[in-house]
Amino acid sequence: MTVPTPLTGVVPPVCTPLTPDREVDVPSLLRLVDHLVGGGVRGLFVLGSSSEAAFLRDGQRRLVVESVVAHMAGQLPVLAGAIDMTTPRVLDHVAAVTAAGADAVVVTAPFYAGTHPAEIARHYRVIAAASPVPVIAYDIPAAVHTKLPADVVLGLAADGVLAGLKDSSGDLAAFREVVSGARNRSDITGFSVLTGSELVIDAALAMGADGAVPGLANVDPHGYVRLDGLCRSGDWDRARAEQERLCALFGMVRVGDSGRMGGSSSALGAFKAALHLRGVIDCPVTAEPQVPLSPEEVERVGKHLATAGLL
Amino acid sequence: MTVPTPLTGVVPPVCTPLTPDREVDVPSLLRLVDHLVGGGVRGLFVLGSSSEAAFLRDGQRRLVVESVVAHMAGQLPVLAGAIDMTTPRVLDHVAAVTAAGADAVVVTAPFYAGTHPAEIARHYRVIAAASPVPVIAYDIPAAVHTKLPADVVLGLAADGVLAGLKDSSGDLAAFREVVSGARNRSDITGFSVLTGSELVIDAALAMGADGAVPGLANVDPHGYVRLDGLCRSGDWDRARAEQERLCALFGMVRVGDSGRMGGSSSALGAFKAALHLRGVIDCPVTAEPQVPLSPEEVERVGKHLATAGLL
Amino acid sequence: MTVPTPLTGVVPPVCTPLTPDREVDVPSLLRLVDHLVGGGVRGLFVLGSSSEAAFLRDGQRRLVVESVVAHMAGQLPVLAGAIDMTTPRVLDHVAAVTAAGADAVVVTAPFYAGTHPAEIARHYRVIAAASPVPVIAYDIPAAVHTKLPADVVLGLAADGVLAGLKDSSGDLAAFREVVSGARNRSDITGFSVLTGSELVIDAALAMGADGAVPGLANVDPHGYVRLDGLCRSGDWDRARAEQERLCALFGMVRVGDSGRMGGSSSALGAFKAALHLRGVIDCPVTAEPQVPLSPEEVERVGKHLATAGLL
Amino acid sequence: MTVPTPLTGVVPPVCTPLTPDREVDVPSLLRLVDHLVGGGVRGLFVLGSSSEAAFLRDGQRRLVVESVVAHMAGQLPVLAGAIDMTTPRVLDHVAAVTAAGADAVVVTAPFYAGTHPAEIARHYRVIAAASPVPVIAYDIPAAVHTKLPADVVLGLAADGVLAGLKDSSGDLAAFREVVSGARNRSDITGFSVLTGSELVIDAALAMGADGAVPGLANVDPHGYVRLDGLCRSGDWDRARAEQERLCALFGMVRVGDSGRMGGSSSALGAFKAALHLRGVIDCPVTAEPQVPLSPEEVERVGKHLATAGLL
Repeated sequence: MTVPTPLTGVVPPVCTPLTPDREVDVPSLLRLVDHLVGGGVRGLFVLGSSSEAAFLRDGQRRLVVESVVAHMAGQLPVLAGAIDMTTPRVLDHVAAVTAAGADAVVVTAPFYAGTHPAEIARHYRVIAAASPVPVIAYDIPAAVHTKLPADVVLGLAADGVLAGLKDSSGDLAAFREVVSGARNRSDITGFSVLTGSELVIDAALAMGADGAVPGLANVDPHGYVRLDGLCRSGDWDRARAEQERLCALFGMVRVGDSGRMGGSSSALGAFKAALHLRGVIDCPVTAEPQVPLSPEEVERVGKHLATAGLL
Repeated sequence: MTVPTPLTGVVPPVCTPLTPDREVDVPSLLRLVDHLVGGGVRGLFVLGSSSEAAFLRDGQRRLVVESVVAHMAGQLPVLAGAIDMTTPRVLDHVAAVTAAGADAVVVTAPFYAGTHPAEIARHYRVIAAASPVPVIAYDIPAAVHTKLPADVVLGLAADGVLAGLKDSSGDLAAFREVVSGARNRSDITGFSVLTGSELVIDAALAMGADGAVPGLANVDPHGYVRLDGLCRSGDWDRARAEQERLCALFGMVRVGDSGRMGGSSSALGAFKAALHLRGVIDCPVTAEPQVPLSPEEVERVGKHLATAGLL
Repeated sequence: MTVPTPLTGVVPPVCTPLTPDREVDVPSLLRLVDHLVGGGVRGLFVLGSSSEAAFLRDGQRRLVVESVVAHMAGQLPVLAGAIDMTTPRVLDHVAAVTAAGADAVVVTAPFYAGTHPAEIARHYRVIAAASPVPVIAYDIPAAVHTKLPADVVLGLAADGVLAGLKDSSGDLAAFREVVSGARNRSDITGFSVLTGSELVIDAALAMGADGAVPGLANVDPHGYVRLDGLCRSGDWDRARAEQERLCALFGMVRVGDSGRMGGSSSALGAFKAALHLRGVIDCPVTAEPQVPLSPEEVERVGKHLATAGLL
Repeated sequence: MTVPTPLTGVVPPVCTPLTPDREVDVPSLLRLVDHLVGGGVRGLFVLGSSSEAAFLRDGQRRLVVESVVAHMAGQLPVLAGAIDMTTPRVLDHVAAVTAAGADAVVVTAPFYAGTHPAEIARHYRVIAAASPVPVIAYDIPAAVHTKLPADVVLGLAADGVLAGLKDSSGDLAAFREVVSGARNRSDITGFSVLTGSELVIDAALAMGADGAVPGLANVDPHGYVRLDGLCRSGDWDRARAEQERLCALFGMVRVGDSGRMGGSSSALGAFKAALHLRGVIDCPVTAEPQVPLSPEEVERVGKHLATAGLL
């Protein structure tokens, strides 16, 4: 299906449930998709960072896209990450996920090899030239160690190379520059500006963002959809209250902050533990080499859910 | 073939020559291998950073290993990088390169997702358990944004998980800690400590390193083999003079430092331009999205070769 | 005078005009203060980063505080930075600026020597114990290379060590955590949460921040005071328009982005050039070793002023 | 006295002993100086990072220089750090330490405000123009978050702005570039290249460094002087053994690596505990806000001393 221009509302990065032996648990994945769709989301983003895309083998990635696309049957747009180090490898993922039915691809700056704005621009130009579907830039400096410069993004938007931006940089001032440019420049139309910053969705929408891609929406899609609606209707006081409830819920990502594991193990472990506690997925396991949460840490996830009224 | 324990001498990270349309140029690759073997190297490391492994598609990676392994026919050990973000994806590369005949695999810390020492250890343990050949850790913080802690490396060496270290961190004090530990701890035997720092090979060997993996050895294998020999024979004055000649030659990596491209485009572009100028490979092109050197920049590469007596 | 609890409204970090031989230009400084007071600001922050505090000698720092305090004569609170590397040196600055009449001191985390949350807490406890006036924490990771953890700030607020936070981190999600904690924790009262992020003041105030400390308010105090008022009255649409006008004006900080100088030379040079063009200060010179703007770059600052309706 | 050109041998960064109430303990300081001179050092560097210069108030800094200069009475050159954020503040320290008798000043790149190579060069030019004694550049990226570029250092050496370099970057490849440039460029004479990397002194001297400034030489000056002598006589095997003994001793800097304090608290705390255990200084206290070592951690320092034959 065609992706709306712009894409609006909540478009969650869909977690990838795994079986105990760490294969994709398709029934759990489809239950999760139903849970999200039931919550009112406007699209699905598979194979993003919250999806553990970096941890999924090529066959697993393909299975995720095929399963979700088939299940959605055109009901909502399915965006797919094509996460890899450089242009040639990303091109192969673009080919794979579009063959599997993705409606758009989401692509980061190059990583591993150091990069440069001229190389980033070249990267997106080559990919867009080869992709049968729109290309959305994925700004995630915590992962790729480069910030997408606002002027590069806007220049590529004006040239029709990029169809949108998913900004997970946490830098709202730079994000605003893209939002304003996309609004005010006459040479840019239909460009979707999406924020991945789950703690400041209200602020991003107030600035004029089109939509949100919050990892925590896996756990509480209804909350984020409610937040989006309150922002759209200009009810900023209630929006703020809803956002603050979600911020408190987000505290779950720190349950593993004991020095025993890294932030990814803790955050993705907490999301999956929460989905398991809520009965959405069968098994909370995360991919290797992430360290599993302890029973006590899972219990603390449960308390976060209870406080937020989700258990 | 079995990799010697320890592996010693010069083991260059082999560049990957490409055709003008950016496919692997196998005849040029094999000429490059002959050039290296003729220079006296003691092993070959394919699919490392200097090999543009981050830029090669899976099929290209496989072709490189198969071609080099078949050509070498057991004459020298062939180490292969299995460069990817996380354990499950690295495991697939380990399976591919060992099926293609690699004698050892070279593996970095996880990247993209943030990581933690406990996760790094877990990563190597899972990979070593699955690998049919020895696993060598690849410490390259500039690419993966994590430094392998010396105590983690030594602990994994003692447990038989790691067979060696290729250190491209540039941190000789930390490198020395691994060298000393590998020498002095009674629970560690046959562990190969290799430096990738092409400008301080003499210092690393003086500290007790077993061997060197210098990218610049593609351009001047004879020089690095000579340097290794001088160090082994304790002729430190002539070793230093040879190393300084190579340091001057290494200046070629900055020919593109004009603000127009990143460091990878400049350095790998210079190595390939030099190999082309020396008649070893047919085409100096680098993979996308790297920016090509200009004719004037290539001319400056030529001057570096001339000064070093290589043209 | 007593600093209000909380401190609200616009509290600009006051630029320090210099003479051509780089001494403090007191008449220009007082004209700048009048310009700010006339614009409706609610307090003055001298010796902050925008004040070039890092570039001012001790005698110059003292002269700034004395001159401004005497000129204000208790009309508005005067906050003073006590910017130095470690506790003992900061204590000396605290003594100096409070002797000169400052109503509160603003203190960063330790820098130069690496630091740790336990050391940061210790730092603030020792300083607060010795300071005759309230201590406000200054979170500026770009300068000190440490982010003040929200839980440390809130813990020190609860213990009465800190009276407020000036957040120049650009991380609105972390800022929100302090805002929410200061609002919701029963053990914290009268704590002032101020943002230094001049491009997202509307968002910070919408989250519940008490006030703003925008460097650009030197150039356009009326604009920032208007923005603050619109936010307080809940007129978010007009607030956003005013903020966007100020964001465009802020573009002046990049006039020196030619590769010839660093960001501080460009940004502080632009602020001072703008104040000079607006007739507020006599001389736009910045302190050594900052590189001066060229006439052409100053002309571009003028264009920014003209577009914003300030010339 | 005139500083030799080049300055050679071991020039330790002298620790600053404090009394229990954290004032400079002059008798202990002079005993430490005697301990170092008795060990055979060739100069003294006061007010460096290991001296806790960042933690000393201006009066304390002055007292240190005056006390050491008077005690040495021209016997050995006394270099003094002039550590502060920017040119004007460094100029005041230069004036103070040279008035107190320092024979050379040691100056870092600007910090706190971001900087740029052009600003760094300007910084050193202004300082050298005003300094009555030679200026030595201090490359310490861990503290100032900028690496001094080799070409900037060499250019300033050729212009007579800089008289030497103290390199604490840990980057031996870049260090070698300065060593080689200082040796080979005809426009540079009498430039002193000193390494601060206490774990690779042998390697630095083998590359052609003139001398060493190791913090650990406070604890074991005899060992470092022996190491320097072995290197100068070309006895590389015994040099390596001595260096390795010192590397093991250096392990004391990690006694506080428990998560309870930062690296500075641990390393400087260990040096001072060792000096106290060896009977050189009266009190091992470090400056605020550093966290003190526990009795158990001090005991582990003692074990390091015992293993190294120093107790």
